[in-house]
Parts: sequence; C-alpha cells; structure tokens
Amino acid sequence: MTSSTLSVSSKRVFNFNAGPAALPLSVLERIQAELLDWRGSGMSVMEMSHRSPEFEGINAEAEARLRRLLAIPEDYAVIFVQGGGSLQFSMAPMNLALPGKPVDVLHTGTWTAKAIGELKKGVLHNIAASTESERFARLPRKDEIRFSPDASYVHLCTNNTIEGTQWHDLPETSAPIVADMSSDIASRPLDVKKFGLIFAGAQKNLGPSGVTIVIIRKDLAERADKNLPTVLQYRTHIKEKSLYHTPPTFAIYVVGLVLEWIESEGGLPGIERRNAAKSKLLYETIESSGGFYSCPVAKPNRSVMNVVFRVAGGDQTVEKQFAAEAAKHALVGTPGHRSVGGMRVSLYNAVELGAVEALVTFMRDFQRSRG
Amino acid sequence: MTSSTLSVSSKRVFNFNAGPAALPLSVLERIQAELLDWRGSGMSVMEMSHRSPEFEGINAEAEARLRRLLAIPEDYAVIFVQGGGSLQFSMAPMNLALPGKPVDVLHTGTWTAKAIGELKKGVLHNIAASTESERFARLPRKDEIRFSPDASYVHLCTNNTIEGTQWHDLPETSAPIVADMSSDIASRPLDVKKFGLIFAGAQKNLGPSGVTIVIIRKDLAERADKNLPTVLQYRTHIKEKSLYHTPPTFAIYVVGLVLEWIESEGGLPGIERRNAAKSKLLYETIESSGGFYSCPVAKPNRSVMNVVFRVAGGDQTVEKQFAAEAAKHALVGTPGHRSVGGMRVSLYNAVELGAVEALVTFMRDFQRSRG
Repeated sequence: MTSSTLSVSSKRVFNFNAGPAALPLSVLERIQAELLDWRGSGMSVMEMSHRSPEFEGINAEAEARLRRLLAIPEDYAVIFVQGGGSLQFSMAPMNLALPGKPVDVLHTGTWTAKAIGELKKGVLHNIAASTESERFARLPRKDEIRFSPDASYVHLCTNNTIEGTQWHDLPETSAPIVADMSSDIASRPLDVKKFGLIFAGAQKNLGPSGVTIVIIRKDLAERADKNLPTVLQYRTHIKEKSLYHTPPTFAIYVVGLVLEWIESEGGLPGIERRNAAKSKLLYETIESSGGFYSCPVAKPNRSVMNVVFRVAGGDQTVEKQFAAEAAKHALVGTPGHRSVGGMRVSLYNAVELGAVEALVTFMRDFQRSRG
Repeated sequence: MTSSTLSVSSKRVFNFNAGPAALPLSVLERIQAELLDWRGSGMSVMEMSHRSPEFEGINAEAEARLRRLLAIPEDYAVIFVQGGGSLQFSMAPMNLALPGKPVDVLHTGTWTAKAIGELKKGVLHNIAASTESERFARLPRKDEIRFSPDASYVHLCTNNTIEGTQWHDLPETSAPIVADMSSDIASRPLDVKKFGLIFAGAQKNLGPSGVTIVIIRKDLAERADKNLPTVLQYRTHIKEKSLYHTPPTFAIYVVGLVLEWIESEGGLPGIERRNAAKSKLLYETIESSGGFYSCPVAKPNRSVMNVVFRVAGGDQTVEKQFAAEAAKHALVGTPGHRSVGGMRVSLYNAVELGAVEALVTFMRDFQRSRG
C-alpha cells in the first residue's frame, strides 16, 4: 500500500478557501496511509491515549518543529489549546490585562472589532488607531497611532483576512504586542521577540480547525489571577505541556505533518518566496486588467495571504457570475466574506502556484468573454 | 479504490484505552476513503470552509442524528463546542449559577473533584453527598444525599472513568441536573428530560478528541449574563448552530460517522446490549477467578464502560507484568489511571466483543501461568 495508489481515484479542486483551507496533498496522503495504523502502533492517531508515549511524541515533535521553524526563543512557551481566536479575544485580557493599565488596540477590521467587543465587557482599553472610517482599506500610519504610556499590552491583527491587509512592518512600542496571527502565522519569517503573545487558529496555514497555537513569553503568563478558570490560564497549559486536559490530538498530529512539509519546502524563507510568487502573479493580473479587476487595498498594506478584489467595478451580478464560472473550472472559494462582498482569494501556504496560474488564466478568459 | 483494499496492510490492536479510545473500523475506513475527496467535493473535510453548504450539511446531519438517537426534545439545543469537560466545569457555573443559590454536587471521584475545584473559585456550592472516605468505590445512596432546597442546579458525573462507577438510577431532584456524561454518553438509552444540561467530550464513545457535545434545555441558557465572553455563553452557540466561530470541523464529521454507525448497530438499545455483553463477560471472568482478579467497586454501582480491577490482591509487580504481557498479545490500554493504579479496561461503544473475548482468554492464561 503506497500513498500514491491511494490517491489515484481522487479529483481535487483548486482550493482558495479562507479557512479552513487547502492542505498539502502530500500531508493528506500521509494521513490517509496512516489512518488505520499509525506507524505500527495498530491504531489510528485518533484512538491513542493522549498520555501514551506515541502521542506524547507526536505532541512534543509538533512543538519542537514549530520552535525550530519560527526560531522561538527559550523564554517563550508554545502551547496547543482549543477555542480559536474567538476564545483568545477573552483569554488574552483575562490573563494579561493589568489593573488600571489599558489594553491598546490597533483597529484594522472585523477581527479586531471582535477583540474590542470582548474588551468592552469590562476591560479598560484604548483604540490607539483605527482605519474604520476608510472601511479598513489601509492600515494606520505610524504617525496616526496614539499608544497609552502605560498599556498592559497592544493588540493587533497581523493579517486581516476579510479586508485583505497585512502588517509588513510592525509599529514600535514598549508594551508587549499580542498578535492575532491566525491568517499569516508561519507564512513568512518573523522575529518572535517582538511579540509578547502570538495566537493563531491552525486552520489557515498550519492544519485543520480545532487547535489554536499560542506562543507566549513565559513571564507574561504569570500575570494571571490564579482564580481564573484553570483551563483559561496560559500557565496551566505551559506547565502541562498542552496536556492538562485531553488536547485535540488528531489536529495536533496534522499540524506536525504540515510543519514537516514546510521544512521540506525550505522552511519559512522558502514558504515566503512561494507565497510571494503566488500573490505577485495575482496582484499583477488585477493591476494589468485595465480596471476590469480592481483591488481596493492601499498597495503598501496588501496581504500576501488574502487578495480581495472587485470585478467590473463591483457589479454584483458579474461578481456572482465570476464565482459561479470559476467554480465550474474547479476554482473554489473565490467569493468575498459575506460582510463585504466582492471576491477574496486566499493563498495560504498549501495553495500551489499552479492553482493561481489556473485562476489567472480563468480571470483573463472571463474578462475577455465580457469584452 | 475500495475501503477494504485500503486496510489490507494494517494490523490493528485490541484497544481498551480510556479516551481517546477505539473507533469503529468501518468508520476509520470511511474516513480513509474520503480523505482526499469528500463525496466528489474535490477536497478533504479538513479543507472545507465551515460556511460551505457541504460542511453545513455535515454539521446539521450530525446534530440531527444525535437528536434522533437520543430522542432529544425540541426544547433542548444540541451544540458542538471546544474545550472538553474541563471547560464545562467553568462554563456550566458561569452560565447557570444563580445569585445566592448554591450549586449542589454529588462528589463521586476525580472528575467531580475537578468540577468542585472550579466552583471553589467563587461559586456558592454544596457537596450534597460524597463517597470520598470510601475512596469512591461506591456511589452515594439516596438516603445519604442532602440537596439544597434552592440549588441553582445539581452537578453529577454519570460514569466515573477512573473509579469504575456508573449511575444506573439517578437521584430525584427538582433542580436541573448538569451531567458530565463524557464517558457514557450514547452508550445506553437515556431520558434527556431528566437533565438540564448534558456535556461530553466526544473522545470516548462518539469520536476523536477536540469536540464537546452539549445538550441543554434552552431556557437555562438564558440565565447567563450577557457580559460573559461571547464564546463562553451557551446561547451564542445555540443561536449560531455551533457556527459562531470556526468549529472543529473534522471532529464533527467523525462524530457524524460514529452516530451513523450506532444507528446501524440498532441505535442505543442495540449499543446497550452490545456494551452489556462485553462488561458481563469481563466482570464474570473477574468474579470467577477465585480472587486472583478482584473488582473493588460495589456491585450495584459497577460501570459498564470502565472495568477496574486488581491482580493478585493488588501486587504492583504482578500488575505491571499483566499490562506488559497483555500488550504483547495486542491488548492495549489495560493499566489503571496513574492516580489509582491497578488495571482499568475501557469498553466504550466501539470496542468489539471479540476484543473482550481475547482479553478474558489472556486473563485466564495469565492466571494459570501464575498458578
């Protein structure tokens, strides 16, 4: 039984979903091959005790790979938790907000709005900058940002999936940065030391949904009141190496396989080149369309992960046709988020350049057909 | 490509793990066959948007199957959430505890101790009964229970995995019962109307870890303060049909397949017969061993799911040999929980009678070899 024979009968689409999203085919084939019997254990990873040496190995290896790939310093913990970014919007202030010291927020879109929504439930906070009045089509300039002198921390979202913006250059601050990195973690090299806490659902660049990766400077985890629910304290998961309670074992296993695949692609520098080539091709196709396709996002802030654009000046009928015809060409996941409309193409790590080539060929044909 | 050709090369063990635990082979084969291309969608379930019609169908079907199997009344919601029982120990009081009205707890083991640990962080509560002084080897008798006249709710654990006890007959109370059913949900028919809230991690009887099933009487969800974190309010998930944020999509898919398998086994009555036959064989083997094997649990309270027993009067050297030799016979997961020692054999839904037959044959041989 080899993985290649397993995949023969499958017809795969080009998957531009915004998350959960495409996974590397080689990873899926590996999962498939190991599904009934993980490496001679006689059972599926799903059937393993989380206290077994086999799973403890899977867990430790996933952490070690992430540490290696992201060059995570020793004074940072890496934990796998549940609840996604939505729970982190509450867990971060519960654990890190200090009395009388505001949480500063750089408000750049739907996901920072969600974070602010949770802060409004009783956490002192300050909107240090916002581009809401410009429909978040750009990120705040450094001269617009008004940090508090005594902030508990600064919350920002490194990549705004829905609006198609991405921080390419972080603002300077002496407060710890808490970064929602759900949609661009492990898509490019980063300097972990610039952050106090990084969180990311795995389901865009690193695996399936159901596991959240948290990278936290260990001293910050000690800010938390020990009377918080045990499972909502970062220190609990740090101390127990993500095994305080039953973790999402299968999701962690898949994350480990994806990290291994990233290593095989040249690590983060290799993945960054790969991602840059994909987004360059797509943005150039948009820019060279004579206005038929248009990207509303300010050029310096455009996301390498999520390319948002309008078709025919935002004509909704044409945009619906675009999505429907794209789907007929096996190009799946092109409609924009229901809150903003238009198109959105997500180019997460596992999306192949070939998929983008198929997409831009379709885009040119579609434009021509409207000619 | 058929599922039977896929499984040829796999050698499966007899899996008595306490959770995550055995899954039905037919379910694993189905997952394997669909892994690269779910029913012509051209993608894995792991790669689907949770907002896609395909996944919404998977989600709705899993809920509908659970409703059908457990005969869940209309005034109860079924939601799939994250965080396991450990988060429910906090979410239940956050959402359901009323000011000045204690949470009553029937304290029967390690898992109710965890629930009490979270209540101690500021929730008024009352231990209505406890068998801790007898090392939880039995459940409280009805005449020992002292419910508060005005309890917010009564917390109990229907099956105590570590201690090997199970409630076969629930105590009467006018307060809503909040049941930790993590280790016996869907293992026997039950009357949902007797409960206010049922929660269960899927990883014992219903699927992989990473998804928690909550069944809640809808009016109780309205007790919660709207200032609680959004993702920690039951009402949020009820309103959004488990899609408020990205759910653990793959785990929900597997739960749906396991529920389908339970239906094919005759539903809960069929599963109950199956489980009863397995535990009967094992308990009888223990009882007929002339004391070589012994079960410390009071007979009326013995669990059908987790059979705990000692070997040679609790001789730890012999018990270690038992586990090691069992493993050589592909009988995996027999050691008891590290906190109590001895042996524990978990007989969750997916464990086949044939596995128990192999185990009892081994047990007789092992006893004879010590003869």
